[in-house]
Amino acid sequence: MLDSPPGDLPCLTVCATLLEKAANQASLCRSCEVLGVDRLVLPRVDESWEFRKIAASAQQWQRVEYCPPDQLLQWLVQQTGYRIVALTVQATAQPLTDYAFAAKTLLLLGRELTGIPANILALCDGALTIPQYGRVESLNVQTAGAIAIYEYNRQWRSP
Amino acid sequence: MLDSPPGDLPCLTVCATLLEKAANQASLCRSCEVLGVDRLVLPRVDESWEFRKIAASAQQWQRVEYCPPDQLLQWLVQQTGYRIVALTVQATAQPLTDYAFAAKTLLLLGRELTGIPANILALCDGALTIPQYGRVESLNVQTAGAIAIYEYNRQWRSP
Repeated sequence: MLDSPPGDLPCLTVCATLLEKAANQASLCRSCEVLGVDRLVLPRVDESWEFRKIAASAQQWQRVEYCPPDQLLQWLVQQTGYRIVALTVQATAQPLTDYAFAAKTLLLLGRELTGIPANILALCDGALTIPQYGRVESLNVQTAGAIAIYEYNRQWRSP
Repeated sequence: MLDSPPGDLPCLTVCATLLEKAANQASLCRSCEVLGVDRLVLPRVDESWEFRKIAASAQQWQRVEYCPPDQLLQWLVQQTGYRIVALTVQATAQPLTDYAFAAKTLLLLGRELTGIPANILALCDGALTIPQYGRVESLNVQTAGAIAIYEYNRQWRSP
């Protein structure tokens, strides 16, 4: 569909290693599992009761890899074959509603308050934003991530 | 577009009066404000510090009305002119990806564990579900709500 040759299969990695709050990581883990994300990348192992509760035990089924945030740059350059797209609140980013995902996509989420550092953003193939209409600066990062995953699925996994 | 005469303006009400957890209500309030929802319906006023923090102060800008859950049925029948759609995890519901929203939509969310009671569901004009691909039973209710609002916006508010 659109950017990739016919026959490509959905293959979405969500990189959430910049997320600082365990509650957001856990909630995103649940969303990824329910929405069929191939691979979720988190900063560290968290076997706490709180994580498992918020994740609704999704960590049992979701494929998860780990990358500390200070190793993100090196990790990203190793992800060959993926189109790397950053989810941001920058007005200059492409609206998610207009974006055609590649089948093999790596969706990069940012820190709760400060987003994605400039040196990391420079490595990305594109930057997306969810159209906003309010006065609050942004959506919660896991909510935004789930919306982007839904849009990816709408393009690549709809029946 | 699709179901409504040309010239209709986006007018989305999100009814979350069945949500039991204050954290979900607050998080949804943030999502509604950012995504431009016309009206959010909550079960009760919550002026706690926790609510305001999770809502990122969105309650200052979001139009909110209140309806206790035990008055939902009477309240719903008064909402003339809206197409009332329930967001559920029922396999028989229509996939969100295939659904054409009316401009004047009332999106009804369910309780965290038990969803929407049958007598309320019977009042709705339709039931939607977000396509799922995992083993965990469902998305978090506010995450699911935000995805449905995004899809409504994609149909009615895209530039």
